[in-house]
Amino acid sequence: MTSPRAYLDHNATAPLVAEARAAMIDALDVVGNPSSVHREGRAARQIVDTARSQVAALVGANPESVVFTSGATEAASTLLTPHWRLGRAPLTMSKLYVCAADHPCTLSGGQFAPDRVVKIGVDARGVMRLDQLAAALVSHHGGEGQPLVAVHLANNETGVIQPVAEIAAIVKGAGGVLVIDAVQGAGRLPLDISAACGDFLILSAHKIGGPKGVGAFVSASGLLMPAPLVRGGGQEKGHRAGTENLPGIAGFGAAARVAASTVARMGEVGARRDAAEAALRDLAPDLVVHGAGAGRLANTLLFTVPGLKAETALIALDLAGVSVSTGSACSSGKVAASHVLDAMSVASGEGALRVSLGVETGEAEISRLVAAMRLLLARRDGARVASAA
Amino acid sequence: MTSPRAYLDHNATAPLVAEARAAMIDALDVVGNPSSVHREGRAARQIVDTARSQVAALVGANPESVVFTSGATEAASTLLTPHWRLGRAPLTMSKLYVCAADHPCTLSGGQFAPDRVVKIGVDARGVMRLDQLAAALVSHHGGEGQPLVAVHLANNETGVIQPVAEIAAIVKGAGGVLVIDAVQGAGRLPLDISAACGDFLILSAHKIGGPKGVGAFVSASGLLMPAPLVRGGGQEKGHRAGTENLPGIAGFGAAARVAASTVARMGEVGARRDAAEAALRDLAPDLVVHGAGAGRLANTLLFTVPGLKAETALIALDLAGVSVSTGSACSSGKVAASHVLDAMSVASGEGALRVSLGVETGEAEISRLVAAMRLLLARRDGARVASAA
Repeated sequence: MTSPRAYLDHNATAPLVAEARAAMIDALDVVGNPSSVHREGRAARQIVDTARSQVAALVGANPESVVFTSGATEAASTLLTPHWRLGRAPLTMSKLYVCAADHPCTLSGGQFAPDRVVKIGVDARGVMRLDQLAAALVSHHGGEGQPLVAVHLANNETGVIQPVAEIAAIVKGAGGVLVIDAVQGAGRLPLDISAACGDFLILSAHKIGGPKGVGAFVSASGLLMPAPLVRGGGQEKGHRAGTENLPGIAGFGAAARVAASTVARMGEVGARRDAAEAALRDLAPDLVVHGAGAGRLANTLLFTVPGLKAETALIALDLAGVSVSTGSACSSGKVAASHVLDAMSVASGEGALRVSLGVETGEAEISRLVAAMRLLLARRDGARVASAA
Repeated sequence: MTSPRAYLDHNATAPLVAEARAAMIDALDVVGNPSSVHREGRAARQIVDTARSQVAALVGANPESVVFTSGATEAASTLLTPHWRLGRAPLTMSKLYVCAADHPCTLSGGQFAPDRVVKIGVDARGVMRLDQLAAALVSHHGGEGQPLVAVHLANNETGVIQPVAEIAAIVKGAGGVLVIDAVQGAGRLPLDISAACGDFLILSAHKIGGPKGVGAFVSASGLLMPAPLVRGGGQEKGHRAGTENLPGIAGFGAAARVAASTVARMGEVGARRDAAEAALRDLAPDLVVHGAGAGRLANTLLFTVPGLKAETALIALDLAGVSVSTGSACSSGKVAASHVLDAMSVASGEGALRVSLGVETGEAEISRLVAAMRLLLARRDGARVASAA
């Protein structure tokens, strides 16, 4: 019997939960187009409506405020636009302020011209510099339009949690609009759109146990909406055209329902992550955990071991049946320097390894990781002894 | 035993073919992110690559030329942009020329300002007015940029097939770029991107027996590409960011492979459609078939029966277990006047009913339609007799 692999890359994509899998398979057999009037169409519409309520419930929102998209990247590309409507009146956002440690889909600036995107730095812990944000917004020229601010709730690489309530207070004080990329926070932190203080939340199904290829943005008010990015038929009340991804949306809804309950188990996950961190530190006392000084997601551990190249380690771990990453997985197999560590002014010649757990990650997977790392580190230490000789 | 329903709305969405269903279920159990380096990621990447080859094969393209999107609407929103690149050089399209009978996702003009979109009419048969197109392109001011022309291969409501080779010749002669919306043509007409003469084809999975929520655009050359609409990670070689819809893409690939073989059976489908048309005409000799003067898709029949309101008939047919539509299904349950019939200058006070078949549509479904229409028409004729009395 081949022993199962240890999949420790939940921040790249989480395995599909059984409930989402079942909901998707049911949806595959519903033939209708949700926009069709006949019985098959109404059955399809019912699936979309149910999922909309389930996703809304995960973040304490009104189902009417959920706009389904093909993922978080499309949601970000839609929201990060100068062109908005407040009710029926057009409204312009003249500059976009992003966090330097944001995901590439935010850093790309969406539909803003590059010279209209301002990066706000993070400190050495990976936390957004609130002083920089406040200063930038004070010097915002309101005459051309309002400021739009986008920040992630929790970092995909380090797990560092941003102080979104304080950020929201600063943004509100400056008359700005706040978009919170909650992709890595959803299902791992309790989320309430009113308490989170953001005007919009971005969600992705596949990070919470749903399928890849579906996400949403959720508005706090429903009054202020971005100009649609994808235009055509009147789906999603005109906010996002195109026939709905029925199986994907069904799976997203089911995963959201599961995530709303499993978020209570993140304490267990944190204990397991901490045990892994301690065991690795026993093996390599010089191990550096990134973002350790800040509040972090319970499931994430990003670390560097001096003298151990992350890229090489990733491949060795993969061969040993352990799947981790060297940062984010957002472009085809590339292994590049981390812009997140750069923003934290961490010199990372060796790169960093990211271990990210799920609620179902057990001790066996952690043991497998630790055993594989023991071999790798013995090799490193052997090489060090040899080179010192 | 309840008799099965007759689903005759394949142009709105086709039932998932068994091969696509199986491919999707297999993909649900592949945990990796296609951008991850580890084994799970590579398995996911393999699924995307296989599907890319299958979709390419359906239209005689190079797999490298296929860019997956969340559907045809996103593909159109991406391609209908003023902002392009020819290799590394930026290139501007200054005006968009569309066909008045195009799908709303084309008519919306994508990213062009409304005053940059020129509508080319169709004749009474529903065929694009080539003289109008030629005249419009002659008066195009090349100094500001090239002309971009978008036209559907086959109409979603009437099934009318556009003369794309002639259109392409006109567009090429004017130095323009041609986007062909092949959504309704794929799987129903043999398609070869070089023979079709278009620079780009737009495809949708769920019209050919694949899942809803996935589509593609396919380039003929690969040299000329639109600025990405959805930006972020470097997926799809930078042409379309966002984690790939793995189950959707797997299902699209499988459906494309099936469609490449079943297109040969469209003769049978046409015979069945013609039989339905004849039977309906026996019941109502005053029935008007829209687009009858032009070449039409073998599976589509759009008709008006004087004195029979399409909207009422749709609901009565639904109750009788027959699913048809009153045109396209592209916005939530709306029943509105058809812009396609308007463009053809057809006065359609009663509206029109669309019957659209699939390869698996059998005689039983057609009989069910005819029987239900017989009852409806008897009621209409009874009402006529009563009002004449």
